[in-house]
Amino acid sequence: MNEEIKHGAWRELTEKQLLEIRADAAEKYKEYKAKGLKLDLSRGKPGPDVLDISNGMLDALETYRAEDGTDVRNYGVLDGLPECKKLFSDLLRIPAEQIIVGGNSSLTHMYNTYAMLYLFGTGRGPWMKEEKIKILCPSPGYDRHFGLSEDFGSEMIPIPMLEDGPDMEMAAELAANDPSVKGIWIVPLYSNPTGSVISEEKAFMLANMKTAADDFRILWDNAYGVHHIWDEHTPPDIISLCEKAGNPDRVFYFFSTSKINFPGAGVGLAASSPANIRQMKAHLSMQTIGFDKVTQLKTVKFFEGNAENIRLHMKKIAEALRPRFELVLKTLERDFSGTGVLSWSPPLGGYFVSIDTMPDCAKAVVAMAKEAGVTLTGAGATWPYKKDPKDSNIRIAPTFPVLSELEQTMELLSLCIKLVSVDKLLEGRK
Amino acid sequence: MNEEIKHGAWRELTEKQLLEIRADAAEKYKEYKAKGLKLDLSRGKPGPDVLDISNGMLDALETYRAEDGTDVRNYGVLDGLPECKKLFSDLLRIPAEQIIVGGNSSLTHMYNTYAMLYLFGTGRGPWMKEEKIKILCPSPGYDRHFGLSEDFGSEMIPIPMLEDGPDMEMAAELAANDPSVKGIWIVPLYSNPTGSVISEEKAFMLANMKTAADDFRILWDNAYGVHHIWDEHTPPDIISLCEKAGNPDRVFYFFSTSKINFPGAGVGLAASSPANIRQMKAHLSMQTIGFDKVTQLKTVKFFEGNAENIRLHMKKIAEALRPRFELVLKTLERDFSGTGVLSWSPPLGGYFVSIDTMPDCAKAVVAMAKEAGVTLTGAGATWPYKKDPKDSNIRIAPTFPVLSELEQTMELLSLCIKLVSVDKLLEGRK
Repeated sequence: MNEEIKHGAWRELTEKQLLEIRADAAEKYKEYKAKGLKLDLSRGKPGPDVLDISNGMLDALETYRAEDGTDVRNYGVLDGLPECKKLFSDLLRIPAEQIIVGGNSSLTHMYNTYAMLYLFGTGRGPWMKEEKIKILCPSPGYDRHFGLSEDFGSEMIPIPMLEDGPDMEMAAELAANDPSVKGIWIVPLYSNPTGSVISEEKAFMLANMKTAADDFRILWDNAYGVHHIWDEHTPPDIISLCEKAGNPDRVFYFFSTSKINFPGAGVGLAASSPANIRQMKAHLSMQTIGFDKVTQLKTVKFFEGNAENIRLHMKKIAEALRPRFELVLKTLERDFSGTGVLSWSPPLGGYFVSIDTMPDCAKAVVAMAKEAGVTLTGAGATWPYKKDPKDSNIRIAPTFPVLSELEQTMELLSLCIKLVSVDKLLEGRK
Repeated sequence: MNEEIKHGAWRELTEKQLLEIRADAAEKYKEYKAKGLKLDLSRGKPGPDVLDISNGMLDALETYRAEDGTDVRNYGVLDGLPECKKLFSDLLRIPAEQIIVGGNSSLTHMYNTYAMLYLFGTGRGPWMKEEKIKILCPSPGYDRHFGLSEDFGSEMIPIPMLEDGPDMEMAAELAANDPSVKGIWIVPLYSNPTGSVISEEKAFMLANMKTAADDFRILWDNAYGVHHIWDEHTPPDIISLCEKAGNPDRVFYFFSTSKINFPGAGVGLAASSPANIRQMKAHLSMQTIGFDKVTQLKTVKFFEGNAENIRLHMKKIAEALRPRFELVLKTLERDFSGTGVLSWSPPLGGYFVSIDTMPDCAKAVVAMAKEAGVTLTGAGATWPYKKDPKDSNIRIAPTFPVLSELEQTMELLSLCIKLVSVDKLLEGRK
């Protein structure tokens, strides 16, 4: 295939030219299929080589005494070891007393917080007692946020996800006029899946906007807070913004070390206003006598109690991940730049690359890849109710496979996109 | 004081004799107070020497690969590593597929289950949507069970706790006639605080009794399932009993290794019918991507995957705890046998000794001990709403202090009981 065809807008190609692209891709696809691949680009999990960077965690425990003498083997310390809270306070610039360090999953903190809002509410009675609860869902977004809201029966309203955060005009209008609109999911830094960063302006609007529900809540999942790949960005300080706006209780903040050291044995945290933290602790005290403090102390010891060491550690992780992201972007650029059949923005950091096919092509691409042994995140997964209205968004999670596997996977994905796109273009001409 | 007075029924003593006991105890109490003690008999937590028995847990991880190759450092495995489920399946004789192994706290499993019942229900709609939910609470019982029910706003109905379990006549009648009676808390083996064991008959009744609510649930907290002190007992197999009774979904079963190895870094589990487990996993999958698998694998490695090793391990723990229990019982026997001012039954095992003062004395005893530096579990804590109708029950938790400290504590407690009892007897004569 000549370069001209490859990088021309495919809409303007002749049927013959399109069939040429098709034939070429179909042959290569057949070859890949014959290889019996078994590759997985579906979940944002670190590869073994990335986990190895943190193996020091496994034997970081020189003592089972915390700084204040607490025996971490025993019961107690509801909201986290003081030195562990301090470490994250330094890292995230949130007062330690506004942080609860818990078990290994920040998703569990989110679920608990959501359950607290449904069961008890924050001052305005339980959400469960209201006729309808609506949650604003910037889309494409994180499938597990949407799954969580769906589990509680919240009505999810998709909001366009733009380059600098959600469409705030739409969000503000919905929140201002509908008292059943109770919250919004936000991944402020390196959003899942688009890898964008919310602007200071939009964060300011979220903190300050008038809401018909006076218990409107921002669910601020800073999952990739220090997960740079290239340049380092910092998310807006939403806790201070809400406080200054006179809405201190508006935000619940989440973070974890899942992608800093171990997803299966790290620590998650929740942060919020002093009043919210008080309420969370009151319920938490009925829920546990204390989270796993051995892991908390290990985390502190591994980073020598110094937030700067987490930043240095994340540079090593970025070095391991960067070639993977570059490979994905290079392949997309090589095969689809100028073709008009695929759009994507390079993520600013984080864990994913988000691509958009032509309308009504994503499901077909994912199915075709699956047939050749490559599992992608289900098409639609990045939208509430798994319903992508355009059937175009696909989330690529390049962090797990080694480069050689990732290369194969991307080659195959590329072929699938070509085949489905050409068919779609030809179909449109009938 | 002569032996005759000490062991006569104090009700029959003359005022002069009572004043003699009082003077003697008051002087000794003053001496203890002067020592400035700072001792804690309030919580059922293991002492450092008991924890030391499990220190092998801390470096039990020779590999981060589970048997099936799963990397325990990474995401995944919602309901627990297969070998960890098998270990507890062997130990508790519950099918592995009916077990969910989670984080370090079985209380968290209980709270999650309770939250699931309130938010979603099990087939009959959410408890939250019903006007009133009543829970039967055998009392004295475990304060954290009652705190949990209170957190959700359940109405707690105390049921007398007898030597072989709750007063089942009362429980069965309430459950049969009132559809808002939705559940009952049970600690089947070595109950907290009385150390009794529920009989097969009573467990059979619980599984078979007619309930007005067809979503009546038994919250079966087998917290001390292998925690023998003297003879070994086995709790009734409630899961099979419910299954045979045609009420397979009636029971939720809880267990943890908190008092087997580390309260601060063990594993908790929930077990139930296949249908309940299916529902629990569906919600759990929205709550976490997987619990801490490093601790799960450590648990398996520490016990070499063999349930028998847990039983042997518990014998070592019993050896460490037995002298503490014997000291408590010896002191009670020495000072109060035959006096008629204090009653207690030696526990069959577990973690506590439960004593009953004369009516309206428990609070005064706890306050007096506190004044001399000894913290006891708050009087009333063993009853719903912390309201002991007779103000007589006190829970002694002898597992934490070393013997010398426990001896001082028991001497002081004994003096407090004497002083308060004599005052109460004298007051009655005015």
